[in-house]
Amino acid sequence: MKSTIFLKLQLLVLIACICFSCKEETTGMSSNVETDSQAHPNLILTQKSVSEIKSQLGTVPLFDSTLEKVKREVDTQIEKGIKVPIPKDMAGGYTHTQHKINYAVMQKAGVLFQLLNEEKYAVYIRDMLMKYSEMYPLLPRHPQERSYARGKIFWQCLNDSNWLVYTSQAYDCIYDWLPKEETEHLNKALFRPFADFLSIETPQYFNRVHNHSTWGNVAVGMIGLVMNDDELVDRALYGLKQDNIDPNSKDNDGGFIKDKDGKAGFLANLDSPFSPDGYYTEGPYYQRYAMYPFMIFAEALQNKKPELKIFEYKDGVLLKAVDALLNLTDANGDFFPLNDGQKGMSYYTSSLVSAVDIAYYYGDKKPELLSVVKKQNLVQLDATGLAVALGVKNKQEKPFIKKSMELRDGSNGDEGGLGILRFNNNEETMALLMKYSAQGLSHGHYDKLSFSLYENGEEIIQDYGLSRFVNVEQKNGGGYLKENKTWAKQTIAHNTITVNETSHFKGRFEIGNKHHSEKYIFDVSNPKVQIVSAKETNAYPDTELHRTLVMVKEDFLNKPFIIDINKVTSNSKNKYDLPYYYFGQLISTSFNYITPKSLSPLGEKNGYQHLWVESKGVSELDNIQFTWLSNKKFYSITSVVDKKDEIIMGRIGANDPNFNLRKDPALIIRKNNSQNVVFASVIESHGTYNPVKESANNAYSAISKIETVLDNDIYTVIKIEFKNEVSKTLIICNKDNSVDTKHQLKIKDKNYQWMGSYYYYKTK
Amino acid sequence: MKSTIFLKLQLLVLIACICFSCKEETTGMSSNVETDSQAHPNLILTQKSVSEIKSQLGTVPLFDSTLEKVKREVDTQIEKGIKVPIPKDMAGGYTHTQHKINYAVMQKAGVLFQLLNEEKYAVYIRDMLMKYSEMYPLLPRHPQERSYARGKIFWQCLNDSNWLVYTSQAYDCIYDWLPKEETEHLNKALFRPFADFLSIETPQYFNRVHNHSTWGNVAVGMIGLVMNDDELVDRALYGLKQDNIDPNSKDNDGGFIKDKDGKAGFLANLDSPFSPDGYYTEGPYYQRYAMYPFMIFAEALQNKKPELKIFEYKDGVLLKAVDALLNLTDANGDFFPLNDGQKGMSYYTSSLVSAVDIAYYYGDKKPELLSVVKKQNLVQLDATGLAVALGVKNKQEKPFIKKSMELRDGSNGDEGGLGILRFNNNEETMALLMKYSAQGLSHGHYDKLSFSLYENGEEIIQDYGLSRFVNVEQKNGGGYLKENKTWAKQTIAHNTITVNETSHFKGRFEIGNKHHSEKYIFDVSNPKVQIVSAKETNAYPDTELHRTLVMVKEDFLNKPFIIDINKVTSNSKNKYDLPYYYFGQLISTSFNYITPKSLSPLGEKNGYQHLWVESKGVSELDNIQFTWLSNKKFYSITSVVDKKDEIIMGRIGANDPNFNLRKDPALIIRKNNSQNVVFASVIESHGTYNPVKESANNAYSAISKIETVLDNDIYTVIKIEFKNEVSKTLIICNKDNSVDTKHQLKIKDKNYQWMGSYYYYKTK
Repeated sequence: MKSTIFLKLQLLVLIACICFSCKEETTGMSSNVETDSQAHPNLILTQKSVSEIKSQLGTVPLFDSTLEKVKREVDTQIEKGIKVPIPKDMAGGYTHTQHKINYAVMQKAGVLFQLLNEEKYAVYIRDMLMKYSEMYPLLPRHPQERSYARGKIFWQCLNDSNWLVYTSQAYDCIYDWLPKEETEHLNKALFRPFADFLSIETPQYFNRVHNHSTWGNVAVGMIGLVMNDDELVDRALYGLKQDNIDPNSKDNDGGFIKDKDGKAGFLANLDSPFSPDGYYTEGPYYQRYAMYPFMIFAEALQNKKPELKIFEYKDGVLLKAVDALLNLTDANGDFFPLNDGQKGMSYYTSSLVSAVDIAYYYGDKKPELLSVVKKQNLVQLDATGLAVALGVKNKQEKPFIKKSMELRDGSNGDEGGLGILRFNNNEETMALLMKYSAQGLSHGHYDKLSFSLYENGEEIIQDYGLSRFVNVEQKNGGGYLKENKTWAKQTIAHNTITVNETSHFKGRFEIGNKHHSEKYIFDVSNPKVQIVSAKETNAYPDTELHRTLVMVKEDFLNKPFIIDINKVTSNSKNKYDLPYYYFGQLISTSFNYITPKSLSPLGEKNGYQHLWVESKGVSELDNIQFTWLSNKKFYSITSVVDKKDEIIMGRIGANDPNFNLRKDPALIIRKNNSQNVVFASVIESHGTYNPVKESANNAYSAISKIETVLDNDIYTVIKIEFKNEVSKTLIICNKDNSVDTKHQLKIKDKNYQWMGSYYYYKTK
Repeated sequence: MKSTIFLKLQLLVLIACICFSCKEETTGMSSNVETDSQAHPNLILTQKSVSEIKSQLGTVPLFDSTLEKVKREVDTQIEKGIKVPIPKDMAGGYTHTQHKINYAVMQKAGVLFQLLNEEKYAVYIRDMLMKYSEMYPLLPRHPQERSYARGKIFWQCLNDSNWLVYTSQAYDCIYDWLPKEETEHLNKALFRPFADFLSIETPQYFNRVHNHSTWGNVAVGMIGLVMNDDELVDRALYGLKQDNIDPNSKDNDGGFIKDKDGKAGFLANLDSPFSPDGYYTEGPYYQRYAMYPFMIFAEALQNKKPELKIFEYKDGVLLKAVDALLNLTDANGDFFPLNDGQKGMSYYTSSLVSAVDIAYYYGDKKPELLSVVKKQNLVQLDATGLAVALGVKNKQEKPFIKKSMELRDGSNGDEGGLGILRFNNNEETMALLMKYSAQGLSHGHYDKLSFSLYENGEEIIQDYGLSRFVNVEQKNGGGYLKENKTWAKQTIAHNTITVNETSHFKGRFEIGNKHHSEKYIFDVSNPKVQIVSAKETNAYPDTELHRTLVMVKEDFLNKPFIIDINKVTSNSKNKYDLPYYYFGQLISTSFNYITPKSLSPLGEKNGYQHLWVESKGVSELDNIQFTWLSNKKFYSITSVVDKKDEIIMGRIGANDPNFNLRKDPALIIRKNNSQNVVFASVIESHGTYNPVKESANNAYSAISKIETVLDNDIYTVIKIEFKNEVSKTLIICNKDNSVDTKHQLKIKDKNYQWMGSYYYYKTK
């Protein structure tokens, strides 16, 4: 027996050697055994992973179905033939779209060649690359002159970088199959010039800390790894040593080109915009876009330069970033539309398919990620995708339950952040996002201390998002609309306080970019009383904004409610506006209001010019209650008001000559000519309407009254009385956020003692 | 052998006799064998059906799950104890709600008593009925004075009738279980007075043709059947012989009380409002409400008076009515909100559960109905519910595919109607509803020749529906809102033509109720060119409105498009407005427009006061194109216009002091100072937007131009040019709708010949 086994082993080794030498001499088909680790493919696919995958083909449903889908896509394109047109069009136009299709299909064809051993895919890539290598040396910069960093194939270097990131992978897959003279030709005529163009020739694009530049770095790095060109890899990782960029120059979005610390390169792009919690300072919409180059290059580096330990870099920030992104979604997986974020973008996007698979494979193989993979229903066609598909096949997934968490902003985690409060009760979920981060670079909005509220993935109190219809050509070629600046970025467009009809930092990027809010309290240790509180002292001169949001779940109520306290302290008398952007239909108000015969805008600038005033009211009582119906649910806001406060019902859409804005409503509480004020409100989701049964259930707020019992420098005390005669009190300590301080306070002749920065208790 | 069988039979008969006599002496438990057909229950449940059901319990999933659900509901209520409060409140208030719960639970408890043999259910009903019998003789009319026909237990007789329809069923279930002196007491103290009150004492309610009166008729008839009181049954079927109702008196909704032919009673309510196609003249929302008493009484009559052959009455109109109702729904099963209809009401409502089960059982056991049952996931707990549940269990269902159809209006089918054009392509559906019916009694809207358009159950061109939040107490106690009259019923609120800013029939019921539109063409024989066309000559003096809607599916387009031709002929010069109530966001227009600095209403009355003018434009070309994005789909309207036409973008919501209206947008084409005109448009659903891929697919209309090639008394000719250079022409014969007439026409020097009232052909 022993000798038989030995004989078989010998035979296997012999076959392996033959195969290996065959490969060297012929077309480089990968074999099923251990091979030279320097041989291609070795970027994303490796000879080892190809062997593993091939041995499992047909047995791992999710991998197989993705492969089948990709094969159909690529086969369809191959049938259409190769088209490499002279670059001409803007985004959305023909040449733009064709070149986009080309790189996407080449990347996929490379994978198919490796996994299916069908030479037609290699031939397709080779033929296309040859066309590019003919055209590229002759190309000037792209004729469209809109970008500060014009590409050659596309109107901006960003898209050229996309091309190279994907094409590098295709090239790696056929590198050993190509005759040496052909690789030498391509390296020399196409790829090295391409990499130099993106970097040396366009330093204002390459040598930045910005999501676009990350694509540039990765493009250069990926092709460097394929060509074994260490100079390019170094350039990718560490940036250009010299760039001569004017420190005051700006890009098309109005962002500074030069990083404030002068850093550049892939690692700098990991250092600077990512916080230690994995939050990317531009927000999840742009983080999602940048995630693909970050993760795919990390995978390539791990394959070719494992000594870099890239996944451990900055305490594992890449893996944390994926986790952060998944947590920055609503119940449907849609990203919170912070800053310039288009609603509807979600973790179903392909860059997240890739990122989740890579994070699973190179992280701790967290079974929670598999539940996301299962929803995505697609995998990356490499070792990481095989791993997740196997995990799903073996039913190893656990639910990905999004928990309350804070994500700090700033490369050191000390520039404010985001607070997410969540409540999960089986299928019923509520999520609150409060923003007290840094500016978010050029895509940031002027909305310090703003918040948004979600129920089961529906927006209850919305963040407007951006004003843009990405890739809808009729709307300014799919680019940013004028109203993004005049409306979407302005403070009044957000659920936070505007002072004197002027946006935070006067709406000026140069100022806003220098500052961030400060976290004051974040405590979710008690799931029934979760609190986030932050301060902003730079948005307005000599004025402090201090907001506290508390998600409370009382046993006698079905759902949690939100306590919202905005304390404003100023040196002068001002006008303060606090809007709540709700959705749906007003059902009732506790206050009287007047609806005008004709509608006029609320103001003249800073976003106010875009709000119609649908009604104005004042309250005769010291509370207002506002109930609305949205998506078959009843909601109420109850607020403490002063009799001189104005209650404005507004609607977006004034001064909108191209109908670019959504005509969404707002409830605005305005305090005129006031100095130090507290806005105290409770937001409830309390009832449902069933149009089939025509029954309204809990159509009324559960709250009878809110009272600001006390407000001074040291404490703010809010009492909430419920209709069931229970009452509760919340005390916020305004000057001391230590968890250890002992406090005592006499309220209405009664002494209260507690420890820590806040206290929520039953009064009656 | 023979003798053994005989012996067994004898034994069975013996057991049956014993059981029967037991029942007589004790508590009337139903037995498992043939019994006296006059013994109770014999209304909805019968002794025979109870036996059948009991023999199958536990083996028919849908029946069992419904029974389990009902048992949980009733048990919960029994635990809460019996409450029979003195009537006091309006709808939504405590006493109203409690009495509603009472009758619903009694009906269910009766079923449970019969099917589960648990005496507690009988005891519960008996005890509650005794309380009612104590209270009822002492009750005056209800203290709330809002109704023209006040009840005793509720504010209106309608609800009292609901009570009696349900309670009769409960009473029937325990009739034989009760000692004779108790039934005699209840008959005398409660039920006969109750029936007399609803009929003799309230003739203005009972002796009408109206959905409310149907409930009254059925209430009296049901209790008559239970008590074997033929006088009551006759009164129910044929109405009061004398009523002394003033022929000019009206109800709360402004409808005439007296039927124009003076008819009354259940059969008159079947004769008059139902057309031979089963369409109920008030529209599907009210038909759905009336369907329960119609069907449940029919079932009872079939059980107790099969000689009436009620399901064959008027050529089987009851069964046709169920079919009509199911066809008057969108892809989600929601009823088209014709006239006063609240959106969201659907075939999931309990009255449709009952109606579909009864229609299946007493009709031809159509397997298509089972697929509706399966979606409803509930059955009626009687023989009909058992039958459908068995059908579902045995997988006998076939898809209910809604086809294009015409539903005629009027008791003889000669008062106009509804045309439904549908296109089904797997999961993709499109549905167009055109209304050319009679007024629809007091709930009718002034919207002759209006239409609405649906795609996959989403509203593309909407009908506004009613202005009411049914059972939302904060909104006028859940009743009709002022804006129902000032907006929702007005012509300008609908997708049809308003002349001189005045509604059809001047918005006066007395006039509108006398007239109906006339069907001109309805031809769906070619699924690729489906056409509906109708004329209205009474809405305005000396003016004819003639609208033609064609649903065309071209092979070179993914989806059908709609050709919409409105031909107006008048004796005088007028102002014509044609609105299209779309949803979502404007993407592009081919024309220029001006957006005002402040918004003013479009007019002063007849609904115009409720429309804000968001922009006004004129076209420099003879076509306008308007593209919008709604629910991730791109739509376009392309219209032939004259250079002097105004293009108005409007939004609902002006003069709406209580925010009762939805702020939905409209595109309005206005022809000023014109006499004979043609509005010719094409509506397309042409593209999609994917926010995850950020890709816009077919964002542009496929049409390059529309042209009114010819328009005279005899013919209207519209040519459509597509961007793929194909062009098509539609000819409508305006004076002759015969299918047999041969036509010939010379257009641009070319002769065309065809047969019939329209001709659609390829020009290029």
